[in-house]
Amino acid sequence: MPKNNLFLDALAGRKVQRPPVWMMRQAGRFLPEFRAMREKYDFFTRCRRPDLAAEITLMPVKRLPIDAAILFSDILVVPQAMGMPFEIKESVGPFLKNPIASQRDIEKLQMPDVEDSLGYVFEAIDRTLCLLDDEIPLIGFSGSPWTILCYAVEGRGSKTFDKAKVFCFQHPDWAHLLLQKITDYTIAYLSKKIEHGVHAVQIFDSWGGLLSPKDYDEFSWKYINQITEALADKAPVIVFGKGCWFALETMCDSKASALGVDWTISPQKAREFTHNKITLQGNFDPAKLLAPPKKIYAEAQQMIREFGVQKYIVNLGHGILPDVPVENAEAFVKAVVEFN
Amino acid sequence: MPKNNLFLDALAGRKVQRPPVWMMRQAGRFLPEFRAMREKYDFFTRCRRPDLAAEITLMPVKRLPIDAAILFSDILVVPQAMGMPFEIKESVGPFLKNPIASQRDIEKLQMPDVEDSLGYVFEAIDRTLCLLDDEIPLIGFSGSPWTILCYAVEGRGSKTFDKAKVFCFQHPDWAHLLLQKITDYTIAYLSKKIEHGVHAVQIFDSWGGLLSPKDYDEFSWKYINQITEALADKAPVIVFGKGCWFALETMCDSKASALGVDWTISPQKAREFTHNKITLQGNFDPAKLLAPPKKIYAEAQQMIREFGVQKYIVNLGHGILPDVPVENAEAFVKAVVEFN
Repeated sequence: MPKNNLFLDALAGRKVQRPPVWMMRQAGRFLPEFRAMREKYDFFTRCRRPDLAAEITLMPVKRLPIDAAILFSDILVVPQAMGMPFEIKESVGPFLKNPIASQRDIEKLQMPDVEDSLGYVFEAIDRTLCLLDDEIPLIGFSGSPWTILCYAVEGRGSKTFDKAKVFCFQHPDWAHLLLQKITDYTIAYLSKKIEHGVHAVQIFDSWGGLLSPKDYDEFSWKYINQITEALADKAPVIVFGKGCWFALETMCDSKASALGVDWTISPQKAREFTHNKITLQGNFDPAKLLAPPKKIYAEAQQMIREFGVQKYIVNLGHGILPDVPVENAEAFVKAVVEFN
Repeated sequence: MPKNNLFLDALAGRKVQRPPVWMMRQAGRFLPEFRAMREKYDFFTRCRRPDLAAEITLMPVKRLPIDAAILFSDILVVPQAMGMPFEIKESVGPFLKNPIASQRDIEKLQMPDVEDSLGYVFEAIDRTLCLLDDEIPLIGFSGSPWTILCYAVEGRGSKTFDKAKVFCFQHPDWAHLLLQKITDYTIAYLSKKIEHGVHAVQIFDSWGGLLSPKDYDEFSWKYINQITEALADKAPVIVFGKGCWFALETMCDSKASALGVDWTISPQKAREFTHNKITLQGNFDPAKLLAPPKKIYAEAQQMIREFGVQKYIVNLGHGILPDVPVENAEAFVKAVVEFN
């Protein structure tokens, strides 16, 4: 049990004095020490070397009084382990030379033992937990199967992931085959993370909000729900679906312990859609961390008043932007820590 | 009064036998004749030459039994007329060399008489109306002030328009100065379009959905509402806010005749949020026009059943994609025309 148990209390719906706070991508480019590390090691080296991943995970913890750490890693390590050799390409970002385009491509995917293929992640967890010394809890994460499919079929990032969507609409049977494989592998992966001691897991459905509510049920939620069902008895599960306001009502009836929401939904609506019955996490507009610190402080406290102190985890509505001054992130965290 | 009055009937809330149908970006790259025209003339030449703009506007009308035409033009002709020389840059898209970055930049913007600066648009309307020969109504349009600000400050397209948002959060006074200027000019522009005979106008708020509900009220809706108030007595106004589901309840109390919705909201929710009291337009997922035509036909008819035949205009949830086969667009329109 971590000494600071605020985050796990909020996930369990236990009463707290103030809400816990962490920030998506808190171990990221807004930190000068992260940028310095980036000069020396490329992206997947930082993911694969447990010493580096642990060091990066701790960076924001040393700077800011946050209530949870999240393991530095990437959602694409899962498709990499399954035989999709994603790389980071200059000025493109995540890149897969031969995207998934046929049933044969999907059948060829592997499901190696996660200890063999992703052992470096579990070793990073072991090291991080050791460094954290039970001060605050550690979060593990994965991408949602739909979000992984988006990259696997598109082969790179996209504004709209139309190619991935068209793949699903033209070949729903192939899509489901692929989604089920990713789901099974993700369950094995996250289960092992929990065995290694992460205190909670978060599923990032970054691209769920590109689907219609019906297609979301079919191509995304169905699989997220399988993962949630498989893990809920082992650790609290947070589901963050960017743009997925329309699914909140369905999600809050699942075994998830908390739901992440982005900034395009008001706290009032988020509570209404989830019938006040589940812990919510979010939803400060990441761009607003570039407003003057006084404004950040005031708006963050107003956000807490609107969500309410209980069953609430303060966070951004998406990852922190690279050009946020550290003092602005500090103003945000301080607004929570000093809230009363 | 056009011979086919279905579209204007739906806008006025009059009873119809079937809903009208048109498609955002229907005069676009999915048409081979549009692509042929593109080989010969660059983008803004096509906008500026009334003969070409009229010819392009008619292209989809000749192919498909649609119930409204929309003038071929671009939302960026407005900032161009105000002194922001947007161009189309190869593999970048809309591009402004010196984006708006200071109060001085905003003060320098001009408000020339719209007949002088945008006469080519009004001439294109005159020509188009002549060619349409009162068969179907013609829609004019503009971008929302917020969406224009996005391009003016960012200087190009973006996934998230963070620079534009940060501009507003750091300098709200400058933002409001710019938004008011764009609003005033847009009112003059759309008023003149109506004088020249367009039967309805649509305001495209393509990037409204990037804002939180509060910021949307402050930086987008406030100005859209000014435009709507100024024009509503002259012609029906359609407001399309992509991703703006959260503002539907506010919007439906305005003087707008119809609200456009994207595919991430179910027809049921869209009706619920607007209390069944306003005409809705939308919301087929554009990527689904690449599904097999039989599926398109079935899902389009299902969409009509869910929205209901009355107070409804069938459309996509955003612009048609360039690679949609013409027969797929035909299946979509046919599903509406044959609906009973």
